[in-house]
Amino acid sequence: MFSDTASTPYVAAIFSSMRTDDDEVGYGRMAARMDELAAQQPGYVGIESARDPDGFGLTVSYWASEADALQWKQVAEHLGAQQTGRDRWYRRYIVRIASVHRQYEWQRDDS
Amino acid sequence: MFSDTASTPYVAAIFSSMRTDDDEVGYGRMAARMDELAAQQPGYVGIESARDPDGFGLTVSYWASEADALQWKQVAEHLGAQQTGRDRWYRRYIVRIASVHRQYEWQRDDS
Repeated sequence: MFSDTASTPYVAAIFSSMRTDDDEVGYGRMAARMDELAAQQPGYVGIESARDPDGFGLTVSYWASEADALQWKQVAEHLGAQQTGRDRWYRRYIVRIASVHRQYEWQRDDS
Repeated sequence: MFSDTASTPYVAAIFSSMRTDDDEVGYGRMAARMDELAAQQPGYVGIESARDPDGFGLTVSYWASEADALQWKQVAEHLGAQQTGRDRWYRRYIVRIASVHRQYEWQRDDS
């Protein structure tokens, strides 16, 4: 869902991926576990994620600094998930590291 | 699908949104038209988009510069879509403007 990000600047790691058709159960379990594990890391701000029925997905994780984002990439259990991702879950992915310097939001009055 | 972004740096506009249940057909028509219209703007690099079945979606548009991203926000037909979005299509959204300074990708050999 929405990540209630704090004041700018902060870092966004944009992960774009296309799934294989393989191992939906194991993939779902890993994704939930990675959300949980990321939230325990230093500098964690939040995660937003969505996937189309055709398998294309975007996950954006937000971090206080680029060092925090880099450290998350190197967490042992996360490295294992990345390897299984290449072995089984993904056809292709792109990772983009970006610095967020401006944001605004809108919310319906009755929601 | 994937946006084949060029060399860094470039700008990412991260649009996170929760849909209402309203007007699925009109929303789909607008989304397709905005993809088409964005691709005609100066500095357009690409768009990636995904939406969960529960209505939460991420759209990331990529631009050569922040001025290009700002100009896209002000295109008349796009302003109309933004207004209808607030009137009908969205419960909530967040826009984050970010500078992408690093990227890498991976692709399965057999895909």
